[in-house]
Amino acid sequence: MTLESEVLERIKPTEEEVRSLSKAANDLKKRVEDYVKDHNIDVEVRFVGSYAKGTYLSDPDIDLFLLFPESVSTKDLEKIGLSVGEAIIKGVKKFADHPYTRGVYDGVDVDIVPSYSIKTVDKLKSAVDRTPFHTQYILENLKEEQKDEVRLLKKFMKGIGIYGAEPDTRGFSGYLCELLILHYGSFRKVLEAVSEWKEGTVISVAKKGPPIISPLVVYDPVDQRRNVASAVHLDTLSLFIVASKAYLSSPSIKFFFPNERTPFSREELQRLTERNGSRIVTVVFERPDVIVDNLYSQLWKTRYALRRKLNEFDYNVLDAEHEMYEDTVEIAFELERDVLSKTYKHDGPPVWVKASESFLSKWKDNPYGQPFIEDGGWTVIAERLYTTAKEMLEDEAAVSGIGRDLDPRKMKIRDHETSLNETDPLLLTALMDPKNSWEI
Amino acid sequence: MTLESEVLERIKPTEEEVRSLSKAANDLKKRVEDYVKDHNIDVEVRFVGSYAKGTYLSDPDIDLFLLFPESVSTKDLEKIGLSVGEAIIKGVKKFADHPYTRGVYDGVDVDIVPSYSIKTVDKLKSAVDRTPFHTQYILENLKEEQKDEVRLLKKFMKGIGIYGAEPDTRGFSGYLCELLILHYGSFRKVLEAVSEWKEGTVISVAKKGPPIISPLVVYDPVDQRRNVASAVHLDTLSLFIVASKAYLSSPSIKFFFPNERTPFSREELQRLTERNGSRIVTVVFERPDVIVDNLYSQLWKTRYALRRKLNEFDYNVLDAEHEMYEDTVEIAFELERDVLSKTYKHDGPPVWVKASESFLSKWKDNPYGQPFIEDGGWTVIAERLYTTAKEMLEDEAAVSGIGRDLDPRKMKIRDHETSLNETDPLLLTALMDPKNSWEI
Repeated sequence: MTLESEVLERIKPTEEEVRSLSKAANDLKKRVEDYVKDHNIDVEVRFVGSYAKGTYLSDPDIDLFLLFPESVSTKDLEKIGLSVGEAIIKGVKKFADHPYTRGVYDGVDVDIVPSYSIKTVDKLKSAVDRTPFHTQYILENLKEEQKDEVRLLKKFMKGIGIYGAEPDTRGFSGYLCELLILHYGSFRKVLEAVSEWKEGTVISVAKKGPPIISPLVVYDPVDQRRNVASAVHLDTLSLFIVASKAYLSSPSIKFFFPNERTPFSREELQRLTERNGSRIVTVVFERPDVIVDNLYSQLWKTRYALRRKLNEFDYNVLDAEHEMYEDTVEIAFELERDVLSKTYKHDGPPVWVKASESFLSKWKDNPYGQPFIEDGGWTVIAERLYTTAKEMLEDEAAVSGIGRDLDPRKMKIRDHETSLNETDPLLLTALMDPKNSWEI
Repeated sequence: MTLESEVLERIKPTEEEVRSLSKAANDLKKRVEDYVKDHNIDVEVRFVGSYAKGTYLSDPDIDLFLLFPESVSTKDLEKIGLSVGEAIIKGVKKFADHPYTRGVYDGVDVDIVPSYSIKTVDKLKSAVDRTPFHTQYILENLKEEQKDEVRLLKKFMKGIGIYGAEPDTRGFSGYLCELLILHYGSFRKVLEAVSEWKEGTVISVAKKGPPIISPLVVYDPVDQRRNVASAVHLDTLSLFIVASKAYLSSPSIKFFFPNERTPFSREELQRLTERNGSRIVTVVFERPDVIVDNLYSQLWKTRYALRRKLNEFDYNVLDAEHEMYEDTVEIAFELERDVLSKTYKHDGPPVWVKASESFLSKWKDNPYGQPFIEDGGWTVIAERLYTTAKEMLEDEAAVSGIGRDLDPRKMKIRDHETSLNETDPLLLTALMDPKNSWEI
């Protein structure tokens, strides 16, 4: 038995599972149809997503769409749509880009989503109107035997940590996986192709659209103005390329089922910083009450902003990691140094410009010596505003371009010793010993 | 009595001095003329330089030129020229750009210099043929009352350390001083004009020549292809601008007669480095047997080259000073730091290029952790080749572009502690407390 059929055996839903899922799904659909008929609601009830396409792994969500005529107002669509969801599954209202109801029916997670029944994707009326077209496209084009290839690819991506288009993962959606299988033919062929990918790779499954600048461009066959891979970050793309090469040259079950990382002890973490001669600083924000996707997005933004700031101030970031906790969000940095010299060379204007007078009068009582001439300009040995990374971050984080819901006034900075004592060892382990998931 | 007339009183040769100098000069000229007549040497004997122009301070050299017809070969000119010098003043042969005899006659320093009597400066036959034209031009154009203005300007420049076109000073020749007085009218007017100078200032005393790129351009009135200020370094120019402004806003005798700097004690020097939080490193070369001007030129080159290298390696030079001693030439640097972290972030190629394979195999056993992906490329925490400025310089000086007669194999590097114990306190004083000469 090949490695991949062994994987499939483990991830493919059993006949029993498929049967019971279908029963629940069909029951649900019937109840919704009866309900809308009883209440004179003019909607088409339709399955979409991986259940509808038959490309799900075990335990899928069931996505049930209520397609309203375009004549219905957005307000009515939302009100009526949510009322159906509430009546049938007693679910919770959710509002991401679009309102829907999430609940459980017969042991299965269910989303009931109101949308418009539009004729073409040119004129979207709500954020989810394109979804039925995606489902339709895959149903019409994906061969039966390719469904397992999709499952393998999805599980591979999950294993290496690039499955999902959310800001946390910055990776590949289920629909994108299906398109890749459609385009290249099979799991293996996708990996072989990806081994040759690079930044800026462009794929047209159906026809090519207008130029788009993105690390990876996959034109949506149902709407070629859209890049299905717009969420894919350069580093996610890179990881996919690296993992594809690694798997092809030595396949292993670990790509699909990686081991959980065991955190190092605090002593071991300290030993690693001593080995590297490096210093750790952890930036801790209070966790704001924002939806998780948005918060992850802000966390990445903040991580990049603070990395830029630390480098600007010469602390030289070696590596960074972030994590979200119940009450906090935290970013840990490994730095080349966390203390700078007390003074630095501050270059002023050329001696012949008017501004040199105010420079001289500003620095005439400088306790680190008078200004002197160097390369035609005034220069002075000046005291640094901050000599530690901690002090610098405390003052500069607020003006670094951090996520807007992260409050710099409630930010705490853990210095090297405090980080080693208090920061999550798992976060520090990822920081001090970055490893690909299949190498753990 | 004004400050400037007080200065003149101190620097202007007395009548007695002038008389005795003239007597010696005239005697000398007569003896040379007799000698060449006796030996059938066809030359014109002529005074040039500051003695001839009457713009000397006390104790000038007398420059006596022997002008040969152009028909004489260079070899004969040198041989005969030196023989005259030897016969009359028993002098030492000197060879800078051009051979001449240096000696003492009746207590006065004398240079006897063979040159060609050329009609125009278009066709120089030796390096010194232009000098008689300079003397002639000044004699014809400088007014009697301007001679003292030249003296004031020369003394001012000496005082602030910018008098002399040699590589040590990188400053203003006597002829250039005279041209400035001619152009602007007086000592005061020169300073007023210089206060408005900037990098790239161009002055045409007679007519403008072709474009020349230099911090200061003064077209030679006897040969407008030539920049009389070509030796003036940007920093010398800057110092002149700064000193002119400073003198005009508060004149002081110190500009002409600065105090000698008293070196700090070694304890005080250590206190200053502690105050700045900075570190000293001294680079010591064996003094090679080359003429002083050439050596100074190499010393500046070396100072800039090592500054660049130290900055490149992140030690961040705050300030530098150099000095020439009997057996060594030394450059002292004040650094922001003299020790770096053990490791640094080493960026490799993008993951999708062929070169990433050799990068990965090169770094697979890296003791500071596996390569990881950042911004689409491979990155690794790598050990530094050198972690101290001393080690770095020991290895890198030879490939930094230092002066060609300075031998990096015989170079010694004094680290911070050793510098504080062994480097000339006067050199370290200038380094740690740079001051303008008039502020001492």
